[in-house]
Amino acid sequence: MTTGIGVDLGGTKIFAARVTADGGDLSAGERGKTPTPTTSVDDVVEALVDLVVGLDPRPSFVGIGTPGVVGSDGRTVEYAPNLAGFDRPVPVADLVEERIGAPVVLGNDVNMAALGETRLGAARGGRDVLAVWMGTGLGAGLILDGRLRTGPSGLAGELGHVTVVPGGRVCPCGGRGHLEAYIGRLGLERTARTLHEAGRTSRLVELAGDGRMKSKVFRTAYSEGDDVAVELIDEGLRMLTLAVANTLVTVDVATVVVGGGLGERFADTVVPVLSGGLAELHYAGAAPAVVAAVLGDAAGALGAAAFAVDRLGP
Amino acid sequence: MTTGIGVDLGGTKIFAARVTADGGDLSAGERGKTPTPTTSVDDVVEALVDLVVGLDPRPSFVGIGTPGVVGSDGRTVEYAPNLAGFDRPVPVADLVEERIGAPVVLGNDVNMAALGETRLGAARGGRDVLAVWMGTGLGAGLILDGRLRTGPSGLAGELGHVTVVPGGRVCPCGGRGHLEAYIGRLGLERTARTLHEAGRTSRLVELAGDGRMKSKVFRTAYSEGDDVAVELIDEGLRMLTLAVANTLVTVDVATVVVGGGLGERFADTVVPVLSGGLAELHYAGAAPAVVAAVLGDAAGALGAAAFAVDRLGP
Repeated sequence: MTTGIGVDLGGTKIFAARVTADGGDLSAGERGKTPTPTTSVDDVVEALVDLVVGLDPRPSFVGIGTPGVVGSDGRTVEYAPNLAGFDRPVPVADLVEERIGAPVVLGNDVNMAALGETRLGAARGGRDVLAVWMGTGLGAGLILDGRLRTGPSGLAGELGHVTVVPGGRVCPCGGRGHLEAYIGRLGLERTARTLHEAGRTSRLVELAGDGRMKSKVFRTAYSEGDDVAVELIDEGLRMLTLAVANTLVTVDVATVVVGGGLGERFADTVVPVLSGGLAELHYAGAAPAVVAAVLGDAAGALGAAAFAVDRLGP
Repeated sequence: MTTGIGVDLGGTKIFAARVTADGGDLSAGERGKTPTPTTSVDDVVEALVDLVVGLDPRPSFVGIGTPGVVGSDGRTVEYAPNLAGFDRPVPVADLVEERIGAPVVLGNDVNMAALGETRLGAARGGRDVLAVWMGTGLGAGLILDGRLRTGPSGLAGELGHVTVVPGGRVCPCGGRGHLEAYIGRLGLERTARTLHEAGRTSRLVELAGDGRMKSKVFRTAYSEGDDVAVELIDEGLRMLTLAVANTLVTVDVATVVVGGGLGERFADTVVPVLSGGLAELHYAGAAPAVVAAVLGDAAGALGAAAFAVDRLGP
């Protein structure tokens, strides 16, 4: 059988899934993962290639989702600070094609997860979907008329950088008042630590100590009713609701999928809050369905395979 | 020669343009207009049909742009309060098809103008365009990958109803803090009159008297440096810039077209303000081109013809 491979190249692990020629899932038995080398570009590419050929020695295509910025040629990762050696442009598509001999298509990791959840996951069968990925930052992917929207500058889905508070909090990107400053894990951690230094003690800082404030820490503090955690998360969710409502009257989608590390931990909060808030805010009352992502780690790899099929054609 | 007709059904006049089978413009000599009857649905339809058959007795298709809300079937005007008898659903496509014997396609007037400016006007050749129509309200049309985006609920392009100030001014639609409350002519007039009643005299009210505050009134008061006019328009343009910037990081377009009655009067202000503001705010610096609409009254009719060609196929 002719099969292809979808890959999610993450900062800590590389995940791959074998799929049918038209991007159909071949079940959990046809998946694999390996830790992401922290040494060099060559080592990262070698680990990725080994994982791919272990699933299929001669795949007919490879789709790869990567963090950071994918160049407009769709073949180069311009900048991905959490991958070793990716602080300068890396021609990932060329490097992998040379070794595997099959066409390679690159996409942004959140866009790939959005497409995966639309084709095979929580929004299966949907044609107009906004996927919101709450993690370190706030990413999103937009599927319009069944196809992933990237846009002429590759900026489509950069919902984390819509301005929700003019002149507001500094975003990790340097801009002001962007959504990501209010609901991304990094933005939330900065605000919590600033409040802590100013004298507002919080379980968030107690639980995290000097380490990274993980999604689990936010979930625990929020569930315990910690004032700072509740205040910051609830505020962030109001901003998210506003940004999604504005997206609805701009491009109009029928389904909103919530995923990502923080999104999964908070699914039981985010889904009803967003759903209720959109129904209240939404022009003309045509509120979309809001659902939690279901594919977990496989979303990005399956979406990358689907993206390769879309781009390469049958 | 086989030709089609595009129609812009407006509150005060009906404008029509004869086009080639693929939607190409046949120049100003092939256009016509007639006052919109203020009596009944039948009279409006008859005036429209007479105008169409006067240009081509047997057109191969008719595209019609209408104000108000077009039903999701694309054949009915659900509600258009500024057309006589259109305060209830009117099956315009069926009524016109019966009399002309050619397929009829309906679209929202601002969407049609956006498509017209993209195919034949200021954004000619563009594939990813946001057209912003500043008039009585604030409308918009979104062309993505060369096609008009309508969306599953028909809400795409309702940029006038994005929330720019949570809990802010009441929008003509009843919502709060929508863009249209800050930059649509109706919203601006309401605020100016409220300020006037509270004691802030303004040339806007002096010039308009008890009549409607027309675009020309805003332009004159603004040019004279009237405090209220300058304050309200400049504030509205900041809100508009914010909403457009947010649209860019959500769906990503390469060109922004500014049109509409108020937009045309203020083109020399809006174009540089928007262009400069977007360059400043825009993530990653890929600011779009901002241009003024050029087709005037013909934009809607030519866009409606193009929309009919897209929908009906070759």
